[in-house]
This record gives sequence, structure tokens and C-alpha cells, in this order.
Amino acid sequence: MRGTTLGLVTALVLTAPVGHVRAAEGPITGFPGEQAAAQRALEARFDAELDANDLREWMRHLSSRPHHVGSPFGREVAEFVADQFREWGYDTEIEAYQVLFPTPRVRRLDMVAPTRFTASLEEPALAEDRTSDQRDEQLPTYTAYSIDGDVTGELVYVNYGLPADYDELARRGVDVAGKVVIARYGGSWRGIKPKVAAEHGAIACLIYSDPGDDGYARGDVYPEGPYRMAEGAQRGSVADMPLFPGDPLTPNVGATEGAERLALDDAPTLTKIPVMPISYADAQPLLEALGGPLAPAEWRGGLPLTYHLGPGPAEVHLELAFNWDLEPAYNVIARLEGRERPDQWVLRGNHHDAWVNGAEDPVSGLVALMAEAKAIGALARTGWRPRRTIVFAAWDAEEPGLIGSTEWGEEHAHLLRERAVAYINTDGNGRGFLSMAGSHTLERFINEVARDVTDPQTGVSVFERRHAQRLAGGDTEDLAGTRDHRINALGSGSDYTPFLQHLGVASLNLGYGGESGGGSYHSIFDSFDHYTRFIDPTFEYGVALAQTAGRAVLRLAEAGLLPWDFTAFEATVTRYTDEVVTLTDGMRETTQRQNRLLRDGRFQQAADPTRRYDPPKAEDPVPHLNFAPVRNALVGLAASAQAHETARQALVSSGDQLSTDQARAVDQILFRTERAMTTPEGLPGRPWFVHQIYAPGFYTGYGVKTLPGVREAIEARDWDEAQRQIVRLADTIRQVATEVDRATLVLEPAGP
Amino acid sequence: MRGTTLGLVTALVLTAPVGHVRAAEGPITGFPGEQAAAQRALEARFDAELDANDLREWMRHLSSRPHHVGSPFGREVAEFVADQFREWGYDTEIEAYQVLFPTPRVRRLDMVAPTRFTASLEEPALAEDRTSDQRDEQLPTYTAYSIDGDVTGELVYVNYGLPADYDELARRGVDVAGKVVIARYGGSWRGIKPKVAAEHGAIACLIYSDPGDDGYARGDVYPEGPYRMAEGAQRGSVADMPLFPGDPLTPNVGATEGAERLALDDAPTLTKIPVMPISYADAQPLLEALGGPLAPAEWRGGLPLTYHLGPGPAEVHLELAFNWDLEPAYNVIARLEGRERPDQWVLRGNHHDAWVNGAEDPVSGLVALMAEAKAIGALARTGWRPRRTIVFAAWDAEEPGLIGSTEWGEEHAHLLRERAVAYINTDGNGRGFLSMAGSHTLERFINEVARDVTDPQTGVSVFERRHAQRLAGGDTEDLAGTRDHRINALGSGSDYTPFLQHLGVASLNLGYGGESGGGSYHSIFDSFDHYTRFIDPTFEYGVALAQTAGRAVLRLAEAGLLPWDFTAFEATVTRYTDEVVTLTDGMRETTQRQNRLLRDGRFQQAADPTRRYDPPKAEDPVPHLNFAPVRNALVGLAASAQAHETARQALVSSGDQLSTDQARAVDQILFRTERAMTTPEGLPGRPWFVHQIYAPGFYTGYGVKTLPGVREAIEARDWDEAQRQIVRLADTIRQVATEVDRATLVLEPAGP
Repeated sequence: MRGTTLGLVTALVLTAPVGHVRAAEGPITGFPGEQAAAQRALEARFDAELDANDLREWMRHLSSRPHHVGSPFGREVAEFVADQFREWGYDTEIEAYQVLFPTPRVRRLDMVAPTRFTASLEEPALAEDRTSDQRDEQLPTYTAYSIDGDVTGELVYVNYGLPADYDELARRGVDVAGKVVIARYGGSWRGIKPKVAAEHGAIACLIYSDPGDDGYARGDVYPEGPYRMAEGAQRGSVADMPLFPGDPLTPNVGATEGAERLALDDAPTLTKIPVMPISYADAQPLLEALGGPLAPAEWRGGLPLTYHLGPGPAEVHLELAFNWDLEPAYNVIARLEGRERPDQWVLRGNHHDAWVNGAEDPVSGLVALMAEAKAIGALARTGWRPRRTIVFAAWDAEEPGLIGSTEWGEEHAHLLRERAVAYINTDGNGRGFLSMAGSHTLERFINEVARDVTDPQTGVSVFERRHAQRLAGGDTEDLAGTRDHRINALGSGSDYTPFLQHLGVASLNLGYGGESGGGSYHSIFDSFDHYTRFIDPTFEYGVALAQTAGRAVLRLAEAGLLPWDFTAFEATVTRYTDEVVTLTDGMRETTQRQNRLLRDGRFQQAADPTRRYDPPKAEDPVPHLNFAPVRNALVGLAASAQAHETARQALVSSGDQLSTDQARAVDQILFRTERAMTTPEGLPGRPWFVHQIYAPGFYTGYGVKTLPGVREAIEARDWDEAQRQIVRLADTIRQVATEVDRATLVLEPAGP
Repeated sequence: MRGTTLGLVTALVLTAPVGHVRAAEGPITGFPGEQAAAQRALEARFDAELDANDLREWMRHLSSRPHHVGSPFGREVAEFVADQFREWGYDTEIEAYQVLFPTPRVRRLDMVAPTRFTASLEEPALAEDRTSDQRDEQLPTYTAYSIDGDVTGELVYVNYGLPADYDELARRGVDVAGKVVIARYGGSWRGIKPKVAAEHGAIACLIYSDPGDDGYARGDVYPEGPYRMAEGAQRGSVADMPLFPGDPLTPNVGATEGAERLALDDAPTLTKIPVMPISYADAQPLLEALGGPLAPAEWRGGLPLTYHLGPGPAEVHLELAFNWDLEPAYNVIARLEGRERPDQWVLRGNHHDAWVNGAEDPVSGLVALMAEAKAIGALARTGWRPRRTIVFAAWDAEEPGLIGSTEWGEEHAHLLRERAVAYINTDGNGRGFLSMAGSHTLERFINEVARDVTDPQTGVSVFERRHAQRLAGGDTEDLAGTRDHRINALGSGSDYTPFLQHLGVASLNLGYGGESGGGSYHSIFDSFDHYTRFIDPTFEYGVALAQTAGRAVLRLAEAGLLPWDFTAFEATVTRYTDEVVTLTDGMRETTQRQNRLLRDGRFQQAADPTRRYDPPKAEDPVPHLNFAPVRNALVGLAASAQAHETARQALVSSGDQLSTDQARAVDQILFRTERAMTTPEGLPGRPWFVHQIYAPGFYTGYGVKTLPGVREAIEARDWDEAQRQIVRLADTIRQVATEVDRATLVLEPAGP
């Protein structure tokens, strides 16, 4: 089977047109003149050290046993990685924290009416998957930071369990107060579902994997194919991370041995109700037993049944109890000191803990990071040293809530705010297309990297391949493919969050995917067997990731002047501003229209009187907000960004070099422009999140809200707050522009 | 359950706002001055004769046994209806034709590899459905006009079986030549599927009802709810009706006893390959056994399996043999002679034959027609006579191919072209919203009718209710609801086709629905029990339909001057012209873009080399067509339409009356403007269809193609033909304008 596949790959590559072979000859920002060629020569040496077999063997070992935080093999993993770093020449430490990590003592789910059924809550071992039978070391299916509970109640199906879903339930006369809700995975981060359910008075929350989103409707299920089988369930954290991530007992400070801790009862990010994830095999009897209104068409999943909302007659009993223990989390931190600007740190991280064996999540990203570290170590052994310090981090306890990275970031906050140039994150990897997300001051930078990495399947650059995907998918812009790809903004879901959103460190998150879909996520089947059959069998995309993230690290560490670009940042913030203006205008029109329809009785006239569907609620009119402060600040930023660009170009054209001190001074300003995007008081109601441009949504969880202060106030129809946040945002933008101007001043011939 | 429901209805009606109570006081086109009030008084008397109990009892009787064409009860149905018409005072005849109607002798479907499975091909009798056990009289599940066959082949899943689906298969390397295809119902009329399959070399075609489109994913299945159960299958015709409908052996002429008939082998509308409809219970094992590529995401249905394309390893054997008999088709024709213009005929029809018991299709529409006839008969008994002749028709053999109406239309073509004013069709009815489709010269007319009929559930007019539905669904236009609803254009699928598209008789198709979804269509469960539980239990929408179609008949029969309006027609044809221009421009851009992407190798770059997905084919560039002839003709039509409207208004304002002869002369021109929309040579390749504005699509079957000559030539990329058809369309539009001008001339004070 694999033989045929690989044969086909070769054939296609051979017949691919040659017009788009990558041209690794363009300029590289930060490497004027001859320096670009020298840097590319360094990168060629780096590439030569990368070996797919290393990645394979490391993954084989690191995924050979379950290694969640606090597990015996978890500690071995940390020590193995640390030993490797040391062997490769890094100054390596394991920094440990004591973090709250509940594990299940009692898990029981029964349907008690109208018929009886006991959920299995088990993923079965498979002969085709050699690590799936390690029952003794596996965490069972559960969601971390669910509270204990023993409740019985009628069941209600709430679709994805988002706020809008409850609006639809209410219009149908379905109230979840006192009920157990069952939500399907998807539509938001899982932790949003119990949070919103509790806000509506539910007493427990089940979350199941629907085969329409995550099972046979996506493709063949394991072990025939990569997708989630009937008994597969998704573990995960349900802590209220949009409030703050990390250890629930030590917000804002490192969870060191002696740290002051909240009492369990006071920990605000634990769920308010018990939560349990289940498989579609366990969910089907419950959903089949639901009566009540028919679920709206878009709510219906892939099970062979008619989805109803309830409540009842299905009634379920859920009993959950946990060991509320502190467990040690081991971050592995490896440093290679910079030769010229050692107090400028380029950070590169991937977590090492898994829910179970974690071949894909996180090991596939971790082994790319290790390959980078090994290759850079090899370069260093030849006498080369980076201009700036490189720090590799393998985080523990990411899965329960980005804990390892957050605690480290909180403990070393002062130093990191001073020294951290940027943070490059990965978290698992697959086959396909490069995904780039992060700080838009690095958009041009990471596009340059993507133009220089060759896609292993097609021979064109990963930049070109991603562009081809967009064009083949129907995008009509930029047929020539000369413009930079827009990078996505970061919300949350991996270890960049403490760096970007708490410390104001410019961050990037990188990974390949799109051709290796699968349903092993957070299950016992995220295994070496699954990964090497379905995800990246040859590890060629693991190598591509190492080439991509490695280039990013090397260029950030080596550039004479950091490659920050503010024109893309300004364009992006302007686009976000257009979005929130359009959002407000749209809400205003919708509200006007809806209130008119309510007044005219249109909803009653249109409704089927045999099925309850109440009209929507009338809303207060949407005022016109004054966006002028932001618009004016953006005009200033645009000028500053352009002046900075002009000054950089002039410097390059002149062939002049800044003195080391001058360059260092510019750097210090440049990388800390991201700090200027933060405010000390943070976002309304969640001061841990201080970034004013990017934040995870309070009701999306992982999904980003850009210009979060403004956008979430508008979404909440809090117009006074929105107006205050607009003013604050304008201040932030001006603050960034001021920093840019300061850097430009140093660059210009008349500069200091 | 019903009690509660009805209680709710009452409550909602009582609390509905009073701002939208219907105002039946506006002018009625064709009834100037006092005549509108007189007409409304007549309609009130008509309404008073309508009785929901009549409809219920007629349906109980007419659906008590299977009554397909040629069946014993089919003849009884025709005679019962004829007897009623006679009793109500109509001059009634049964006009019989001898038509080809194959019924199955052998039906057998087996999977022979990789495992064996024999399809049941049976719908089970249910205790909850009292007529479902009439096995002896039921037609088994089959598709009429499939040829005989005995074939074995590998299976391929072809989605809806449309031309674009085969393009997708080809890009994945799947060829259906020599294979058996399985298509799901939906996306087009069923007869398109075997036609397109045969064009691609398939040797047989299975059509199944997927539960995603027609089963549990839509709602609870029978007998718990109205939707199609696992064993339910959809009978139907698969004759190539876009070529011509009616008896396959007697195109263009009535299938009278002595008519000249084609030999069976020469009948062009029979399928080229054997065809069989199956249930999802029978389809599931076949689809589960398919290998080959994963079906595209949009192709996956609601069965709990991963949809693959094949071919094989599933291999099926299909054996079909039919009795190729002529059967008698009995049209019931009832006339009420007009008092003043007896040679102007207002036609009103609904078929009476069913696939099985046919409570919904066609009896629910037929009983509304009967109620109209009874009420008009009662008016006539009081001495009233319509100004024009009213003809009620109950057609036989609609199900196999609009045969009864088509043969009658063909036989009486000359008389009908002379005399037919308009044809009002219904074909089944449900609960909910009025659907209006047909000739746009009648758009204003039928909107006036809709404003005068009260919705039984809400108390507002059916016009208002439909408008409310649009607004509540998000439509942002016309919040006040003062503009006419745009009526849809007619394609095919019921008995209007011979009148509108073969004879050029202005037609309307009316029905209520949208709140009574169900899956009984063409199954043994289209029964009185199903209808009275799930469709229109109180028959209040049957009465509403009688009020709607009855008003249309009464106003057309009674108006001093026929209420034709050409401004909406002109606006509509202009909109269609904009559509085909946009279509051409879009094709030009898409072609340019796609050819550029092909040249740049973008499809290969984007493709996953482990899964075959060939680039699309390069296409010749799309030329610019000269639409000026149509644009210029439309300018002329707009002027003619406006002048006509002005002349009508002036006449009404003046209070003058035309003489009877003048009025009759105007009428004769007005109703024959629809003839001016036809051409003697008809559409390219299908001369039976002569209408140049509306036709069923050659590859959609029921779905309309407006401006069909132009549009289908563009879709086929036949640019020379498109240009010829543009010129022809311009001629047609000018021809209509000329007729409008002639009518205006008679209207004007200086007129003859």
C-alpha cells in the first residue's frame, strides 16, 4: 500500500512543471548584501544535519509509553530530552513546578430512563496499534479540571454548546436549568461548553465526538483509516483558560514549591459543573432516547438517528470524582549563548507531555525541535556561534492548560520582558501545507522563510505550495503569487499564549497539515503506529518543519538587525479595525430590522404554530461609535511604519553598517514593540491577558479575537465599554508608533 | 397531541398583532370601479360553499386503494370524479387514450461480491397505516420506462449523478464505463441520473433514497414521524421527459386508439440502461462494500458509513423485465360554458392517478379542485354563469410522464391554441406557505389573489404570511411588504408543461407547503393515515388552496378585460438576461483563471500526491457575445408594456367601458401573447418544447432553465448557437411587444 503511494509521489514530482522551482536567491531582511548568501550557506549546513531517521527513532521512543504530566514515563521523557540537549552542547536545565493535576478516581455514566444503559467510557486496545494496550499507564477518558459531582437529570442536546445555541434552545422553549446537557465537540474549544452550560443553569455537561465532525463521515475509521472509531473519545482540559491558563492555583506567579496557592474552592478556572467526554458509541443510545423538539437542521450530526433536543425522556446519572493532587511538571530548557548580543533571547518551544502516547501531539513537533537543536549544536561544534542567544524549551503540562510554559513565563516574567526577542512555537505536525500564524510584525519575515523551504512532495517552495492550494481552491487574488501570505492571528491552544498574550513577546506558531486528517487527537490511538501509517510516514514533513522553524530561529538569532516590519502590522490592524466597524454597522442594521419585524409581528406570522419558535428578543438600538481615535492613530502608525521601512532601505542601499551598539539599540526597541501592544491593566475582566491586538475569545477559547477589548465589548453590546476600549486601543497604537519612530531615529544617518 | 397543538394555534392567532389583518378592499385588475366589490361578493359566496369535510371524505375514498394508470381502482376514480362533476352541473366527458405503461415482471438486485446480499425491494406493511397492506393492487418499487436488462458489474457511487459529478469522478481517475452506478435521489429530477450515467457508458443505474436527504436526518421516520423509513423507496418515471413528455410512442399527437405509434425500439425517451430505485436499507450494504477513493465531502450522505466511490469491490447483479403494455388513461374533462365569451377557456387541472394510494400526490390537490368545481357548480345553480368558459380537468397518467394532459393537449392543440386563456395547475398540497409559479404576465394577477386569501393558521393573508416568512428568514428587502412577490418560473414536473411549453398557454402552478415535510413521496405510505397525521390534518390548507385557485379561476373567467400585465414580464426577462450575461462573464473569467493556473502548474502543486486528483481540463476561451439584440428588444418591450399599462389605467380612470366586441378583441390578443413567446421550430434538439422563455433543463429535468435556447447553449459552450439563440430570443421579445402594442391600440380612445 505504501509502496504504491510512494511510487505515485515520485511520478508526479517528475512530471511537475519546472516554472516554479524555488528561487532561494532573494534578499533576506536583516542580512544586507553578501550576508544573505552567507546566511543561506549556513542554512544549507543546517539542513545537511537534519535526518528523518532521527525524528522517527526519537518518536518511536518518546511515544512508546503514556507520558502525561506526573507520569513515570513523563519524567523519563523530560530527562531523555534534557540528556540529548546536553549531548548536543546546550546548557540544559530541568525546571520543575508543582501543579494541580486532577486524575479520575470515579467515572460513571448511566442512562436511568427511559431505558437503562451504562456507558463504557473505554477505548479498546487494538492488535493493529501496539501501544494501545498499555492500560496501566494510560489516563482514562476524562476532562481535566472538571469538578467532582454526582448528579442525575434529564438530558438536553445543545449542539456545540455555544451562547447562540442556547438562544436557539430558548426560542424553542427548551431550558437547561437543572438538566444535564450533551454537546458535540467542535465549534469552539471544549472548555467553553461546560462554562456556557453552567451559565445557563445546567448541572452537568457531556461532550461527545460526533461522527459527522470526527468519525466515519470524515473518512475510514481506525484501524482501517485514520479517523475516530465509535469507541474513541477525546480527553482534554476544561479549565477556564480564557480567564488565565497555567496552574489554576497560582495565577500570575510561577508554581514553585513555595509559591502561595489558592485554595481549591477558590480556584476560578475549575469548572462549575461536572464534565465528561464520551465516544459516539456511548452517546448514540442517549441521543436516540431524546424526545422533545427536532434539532435544527444544522445541529444534526452524523449518527443514524433523528436528533431531538429533549429535555428527556432520557435521564442520565453522572458520577465523577478526582484525585486533586499536585504533580511535578518538568520543563527542559536548553541555552546556546549568543556571541554578540547574549541578552537577546530567541525562544523556540514545543511541549513534551501528552494525554497518552502522543505521537502526533506533541511528539511530531518535539522531534522537529530536537532535530533543529541537534543541527544547530552541530554547527556550534564547528566553532560557529549565533549572534544572539538561542533557547530551546520542551514544556511539560501543556495538555492540562499550557502549564509548563505559563509557569516558566510567569516565574521569569521580568527577565523575559527584558530579553525575549521572539518565541517560535510548534505543537505537532502533519503532511501538507505550511500554516503560519502569529505576530504581524513578523509576517514578512516568516514569508521569506517559507519561500526558502522546499516542499518535500512537489519540489516547489512551501510558500508556493500554500499559494497553489489557495488558487486551486478558488481564490482569485494574486495569480502570480508575489505577495506575502497573510498570517493568521493567534488565539490560544498552545504554549505561545504566555509569551504573546501575557508577556508581549512576538510569537509565531508553525506546522504542516491539511493532507493528514485524522481522529487520533487526545486518544490512546495517537500512537507511533497511527502516525507512521497516516500522518507523515516518511517524516519528510517533520524535516520540513525543522527546516522552517530552524531557519526562523537561525535568522532571528543571526540577523545584523532584527527583521521587524511594521507595514504589514499596520495594514493588519487597519483591516481588523474595518472588521469591527463593519461588525458594529451590521449589528445596527440587524437590530433595526429585527425590531421592525418584531413590531410588525412578522415572526409570529412566519412561525409554524404547531411548533414553538418564539420571536427573538428585542434589542436596544446600536449607537454609532467614535472610531476616529483608532483611525487617527493608524494614520500615524502608517507614517511611522513607512518611515522606518524607508530608513532601513536607505541603510541597506548605502552599504553602511550600524555600529554594534547602534544595532543592538535598534534591536532592543524593535523586539519590544510587542510589549508596547500590551497594557498593564489587561483586558476587561481578565487582567492576565494584556495584549491589545490578539487574545483568545472569552467565548471561543482557542479562537482568536483580534482587537479583543473593542471587539468583545461590541459583541457584548456594552457600548460604553466599547468606546473606552477604542480610546485605549488608539493609545496602544500610538505607543507602538512611538517605539517605531524611536527605532527609526537610531537608523537614520543623523541618528545617535 | 393534536388537541394541544390546536390550542397553541388559537393562542397565537389571538395574540397576533392586528396591524396586518388582510384588507380585501383594493382594486382588482380587470374589475374596474364597482365590479371589484361585486367580484368579492361572488368570491365570498364561493368560499361559503367550501367544506373541509368534503375534502376529507373525498380523499378518504380516492386514496382507499392504489390507483395508478391502468389499475381497476384508477378507472373507478375517474368515474367517481366524473360523476361528481356531472352532479354539480358540468358538461363532463371521460376522454381516454391508450398509452405505453410498463409494469415490472422481474425485479432482482444482488450484491455478488465481495459478499452476497439480496436487496428486499419491498416496502413493509405497517399496522399504523391501514392501506399499506394492499399488496395485490400496489405497484412494486420500480422506475417506469427503464428498459429491460440483466447485467452484472462493479459498482460506482456517483453522488447525485449529474454531469458535474462525473467530472469529479474523472479527476479522481474513476470511470463508470461498463460499471453499475448508484446515485442518490436529489440534485435533479430522477430521470437525469440514468440518462447521464448512460452517456458515460454505465450499464445500469441504481437510485436510492439517502437518509441525509430523505430519511432520519430530516426528521422522525414513519410511522413515528412523516419521514422516509429505512425500507421506503421512491417510484417514479425515468423517461427522458426533457426531450418530450407524454406517451413515449406518440410524440406530438394524441395517443388515441388509432394513432400512429413508434416501435418500442425506436421510442427515444425510454432509458438506455436498466434503472432501479432502492431504499436506504437496501443501499447500505452496497455502499459499505465500496472501496476506492473517499467520496468528496459534499457527496457523503446520512448513512453511518464512510462513503467511497468504488469501482468495486462491490459487484452487483441487476435483473429487470417489464410488461410493455398499452393501458387506458382516463382524463375527466368538465365544462361550464361561458355566458359571453364561451370560446375563451379558463383551464383548471390536477391529476388523479397515483403511484400507489396517493393521498398527498395527487389527491390533496384534486380534492381542492373538486371543492372549487362543487362551489362554482353551486353558484351556477343559482343562475350565475361565468363570462368565459371554465374547464376542469382531472388528468390520468401524470405520474409516468404527464401523459394524460400531454395527450389531451396534443390532440386538441389547434383548439387550445385558439381558445385557452390560461391553465391553473395544482398537484398535491400541504400546510404552510403559498407557492406561486408560472407565467410572469400573470404575476400581478396571482399576487392580487394571494392578498385576498386568509391564511388559516395566522389570520393574515397568504401574501403577508409568505412575505413574513421571507423577512423572518433574513430577507432585507421590502420590509413594508407592499411589492408583489416574484413568482418562480416553471420547469416541469406536473401537467402545466404541455400547456405552457408546448402550446404557449399562460400557466400557473399553485400549492401550499413548507410546514408539512415528509417522506411518503411515491411510496405506499402516501396514504390517508399519513396525510391526516402529518400533512394537513384539518384540511384547512386544502380549503385555502381551493380559495386561491378558485379565485384565480373565477377572476380569469369573470374579468371584463383579462388581467395581463407586461411590466413584470419585461422586468423578469430583463433579469434573466442579466443572469445569462453574468453567467457568460463568469465563465470567461473562470476559464481565463483556470487556464492560467493550469499553465502555472498550480493544480499539481496543490494536489496531494498520495491521492489522485487530476487538474481540470483546459477550456477554450469564452468569447464576448453580442447581447445587444435582446437588450434593444427589451427596451422596446418596456415601452410597449408601459404604454399598455397607461392605456388600461386611462380606461379605468375615464369610467368608459369597451364594447363587448372590443373587450373580446383585446382579450384574444392578450391571452395569445404567450403564444408569441413560442417559435415553430422549438428548442435546439427538442422541438416539442417551443417556449423561448421557460423550459425544463435538458440536464435538470424538472428544474427550469429560463431563456433556455440562449442559456443552455452558453452552458454547453456552443458560442455560435448561443449567438443564434440570442437573435431568436430578440425576435421573440419583439413579437410579444408587437402583440402588446396591438392590444393597446384597441384600448386607446382612438382605437377601433
